[in-house]
Amino acid sequence: MKPAGRLGPSGPANPAGATVDGALLLNQLDELAATARTPAGGVTRLAWSAEDRAARALISKWGASAGLTTRPDAVANLIADLPGTVAGLAPLVMGSHLDTVVDGGPLDGAYGTVAAFAVVTALAAAGERLRHPVRAVAWANEEGVVAPPFSGSRAAAGLTIDMGALGPDGRRLSDRLAEEGGRLVSIASAAWGPVAGYLELHIEQGPVLDRSGIPVGVVSGITAAKRGWARFEGHANHAGTTPMHLRADALVAAAHTVLAVQRLATSGPVAVATAGAIEAHPGITNVIAGRSAVSVDIRSLDGSALATAWARLNQEVGDIAVQTATTGTLSEVSCTAPVPTDARLRGAIADAAGQLGLATTELASGAGHDAQCLAALGPIGMIFVPSIGGLSHHPAEATAPDDLVAGAEVLLGALRLADERLDR
Amino acid sequence: MKPAGRLGPSGPANPAGATVDGALLLNQLDELAATARTPAGGVTRLAWSAEDRAARALISKWGASAGLTTRPDAVANLIADLPGTVAGLAPLVMGSHLDTVVDGGPLDGAYGTVAAFAVVTALAAAGERLRHPVRAVAWANEEGVVAPPFSGSRAAAGLTIDMGALGPDGRRLSDRLAEEGGRLVSIASAAWGPVAGYLELHIEQGPVLDRSGIPVGVVSGITAAKRGWARFEGHANHAGTTPMHLRADALVAAAHTVLAVQRLATSGPVAVATAGAIEAHPGITNVIAGRSAVSVDIRSLDGSALATAWARLNQEVGDIAVQTATTGTLSEVSCTAPVPTDARLRGAIADAAGQLGLATTELASGAGHDAQCLAALGPIGMIFVPSIGGLSHHPAEATAPDDLVAGAEVLLGALRLADERLDR
Repeated sequence: MKPAGRLGPSGPANPAGATVDGALLLNQLDELAATARTPAGGVTRLAWSAEDRAARALISKWGASAGLTTRPDAVANLIADLPGTVAGLAPLVMGSHLDTVVDGGPLDGAYGTVAAFAVVTALAAAGERLRHPVRAVAWANEEGVVAPPFSGSRAAAGLTIDMGALGPDGRRLSDRLAEEGGRLVSIASAAWGPVAGYLELHIEQGPVLDRSGIPVGVVSGITAAKRGWARFEGHANHAGTTPMHLRADALVAAAHTVLAVQRLATSGPVAVATAGAIEAHPGITNVIAGRSAVSVDIRSLDGSALATAWARLNQEVGDIAVQTATTGTLSEVSCTAPVPTDARLRGAIADAAGQLGLATTELASGAGHDAQCLAALGPIGMIFVPSIGGLSHHPAEATAPDDLVAGAEVLLGALRLADERLDR
Repeated sequence: MKPAGRLGPSGPANPAGATVDGALLLNQLDELAATARTPAGGVTRLAWSAEDRAARALISKWGASAGLTTRPDAVANLIADLPGTVAGLAPLVMGSHLDTVVDGGPLDGAYGTVAAFAVVTALAAAGERLRHPVRAVAWANEEGVVAPPFSGSRAAAGLTIDMGALGPDGRRLSDRLAEEGGRLVSIASAAWGPVAGYLELHIEQGPVLDRSGIPVGVVSGITAAKRGWARFEGHANHAGTTPMHLRADALVAAAHTVLAVQRLATSGPVAVATAGAIEAHPGITNVIAGRSAVSVDIRSLDGSALATAWARLNQEVGDIAVQTATTGTLSEVSCTAPVPTDARLRGAIADAAGQLGLATTELASGAGHDAQCLAALGPIGMIFVPSIGGLSHHPAEATAPDDLVAGAEVLLGALRLADERLDR
């Protein structure tokens, strides 16, 4: 640890350097969740909603108590900046998002956001300055419930945003943003320059850390995902009068496909493979299905593995169609590229955890995060903490308090190490 | 052939005996279909609808032209009786139904009904009398679209009918019947005594005769059907963050079950086995399904084969649940008993076809028919004619004109042979 300076924006310097106030962090998470509790016990904080504005107001208030100034940008990201000691360096950024899915949990996004502001607030309060400017950010609309996802981080990265996109309530994104205080006129104004590094702390949203008992995950990268549908056309016929050998049963074809998708991961090249949705028409007990569709979602840190698996599935869909006397097609809906994390930031995270006596493991993120958009601006790193039972997007989403505090301490430590190791 | 008498209710006797007027039969089928054509080119004639009443009026008019009197009963069955020459014999009955599914075809039910009335009308017109009384009947509500199926034949057989059953329009069956001219007050009055025999002519609704080129099917029996659902409970989880070995994927379990159901017939004891409906929850591309359900429909002429297959499937559902880390249950919704046809009536049908130079084959009916209810009153027999492409319950439902005429001729011939061979 080499704090580069100790002059706070207000008040005296703290020669011991900043520390994470664990009890305060946990209280802030509770207070934030309480502003958006649902009858089901979950949290619903849709992007740009009243609950979202209330959350941003709380974050601003907590920062102000340590003399930290926050500001919104054109997409309603909330940003706090702390100057660095070396002129001309790009900022080190920490952040996550405040919005949730409907009846989500209290931690997805909120945890990393509160921790990022807690760290920059602690630095400010302690009068600790790093070489780089430090920025905390609460990204707008990561989840994509009311508009396409990653609005805030895409805007910062200068990526395109569909301002005409309609939400589930029929309102356009541009109209929604215009209501955010009348200030949000030019999305382009939200674009940033390069960043020295971006660190995002997040719950794992999966079971790996919880099952292994390891408190800190060093994210190796955000997997690429390829999605699409396998569809079959057979013949809808009477279930009682059509002999087995004269059937063209589209649901039998779909069932074979569900199992073929599973094999792409269990005995194939990708990390995970999922058929989550299925349709059969007419979908009646006593009628052989004449049409069917199966969704396909495969993910890998290796983009070429996705292509290999897709080609194999395409072949299998053809074989299944022949076998079931149906016609089968496999069509792609979307495909993202893998986003690797930066080796120096992975090292900084692992070393910071080590200094705290915390075990780590590397794991891929199968979910998308704002970090993947920030990768356009500079190196990224992500810290995961355990999700109890692997649950997320669920009212019961939870992480042990010690793990929550440890994650924030790792974030602060990794930020300091990154400040030493990253030069831009 | 031994016509027992030749005195018509009106007009002179025809010493040559009755014959089927094929051109008239085909015209009547066309005229009937024209009264209920849909924009899709199909036929929609729901039970007790205006179209149904129009159809009954046509049938009555055609009978009246030969001096035949028709009468409705308490459930709106339409009945025509021709006296026999031997006192004390129970009637020989022919019939089928006039109602259709939504956008069904012109032949399912209508063909056997028009043919039954054509035969009794031809007998009346020719002054030909059999030993037994002869009855033609148009059964009400075989399809079960607006009330539970087989209303007419169940009422005749003295079986229970749920008069409070609500149709898709929310109307009770009792209210629906009360509108049928105000006459339909007592369902019990529709119950018959024993019948000497019942013959139903019907399209096959399957592909067996069409594929084999055999014009006449002698139905061996109406298969028993056992229906139910296999249900699985797993864990809904993120498709990107949940490793394959930690999943409890209810849709994978459902897919295994669809294939297990198929095997109950392809390498198991039942004639046909179908999974026609499937559900997965939440049914989202990027979420592992936490719950699923698969419908099961198995049929056999042998009730014990159904039980054996069901027990095997129950075991397989348990094995699949273990294999997929889900919990699985198999529950029965309904089970019918097989209804064999009568050997003397099968012989009468085969012999009548043989006298006409028509090839026959025995086949089971996988679909339900009014005949299965009539079996409570006496021996039953069924004659099938080919369905082109096996299609039924479809606007394109069709049978070659020659096959339609041949079926009616077999019905008349079988009626005469049954009259000789059946004693009650």
